[in-house]
Amino acid sequence: MSETLQPPYYAVIFTSQRTEEDKGYGKMAETMEELASTQPGFLGIESARDARLGITVSYWESLEAIEKWKNHTAHIIAQQRGKEEWYKNYIVRVCKVERAYSFEK
Amino acid sequence: MSETLQPPYYAVIFTSQRTEEDKGYGKMAETMEELASTQPGFLGIESARDARLGITVSYWESLEAIEKWKNHTAHIIAQQRGKEEWYKNYIVRVCKVERAYSFEK
Repeated sequence: MSETLQPPYYAVIFTSQRTEEDKGYGKMAETMEELASTQPGFLGIESARDARLGITVSYWESLEAIEKWKNHTAHIIAQQRGKEEWYKNYIVRVCKVERAYSFEK
Repeated sequence: MSETLQPPYYAVIFTSQRTEEDKGYGKMAETMEELASTQPGFLGIESARDARLGITVSYWESLEAIEKWKNHTAHIIAQQRGKEEWYKNYIVRVCKVERAYSFEK
């Protein structure tokens, strides 16, 4: 997905280690992905998780769009529960995508 | 990992879908990660893969370091086998990390 986007655009790399129990995490992750995708400036999202690590990358038109999503009321509530219940640790990196190329078999 | 790095630095987001069989992929991925980590300007690497998607993000001091690693002879051989045998598709995005913050429980 997202391979037809023309740089420059922005990416938020979210790397996380989860706590042991689900405690509503799966449902909230789904809800937040759906809500993010309706925000102005949203371009796409990709996610992978294995036993060690989860990486979610969301793509945005501008830094302003990223900032608005960060401060969205429902997202703030989710972030708070994330700190309290779902994550052992996480890193958020806000990036400008400068070049992109793809391969398709 | 990598949470103490001070932006700006660079990230390469590699998103891929694999073919069905291993065919030496696991061993090569390990070898490439070890080799990347000895390159000048290498800062770190994070990887997650589930049934749908793999995401690997490597971090670098400069665009020059990324370009050199892209053109490293052993890496070019691995890239070629990747196209022939291991990947259905992939996207490479070269990014400048502008801001970063982390949470630790």
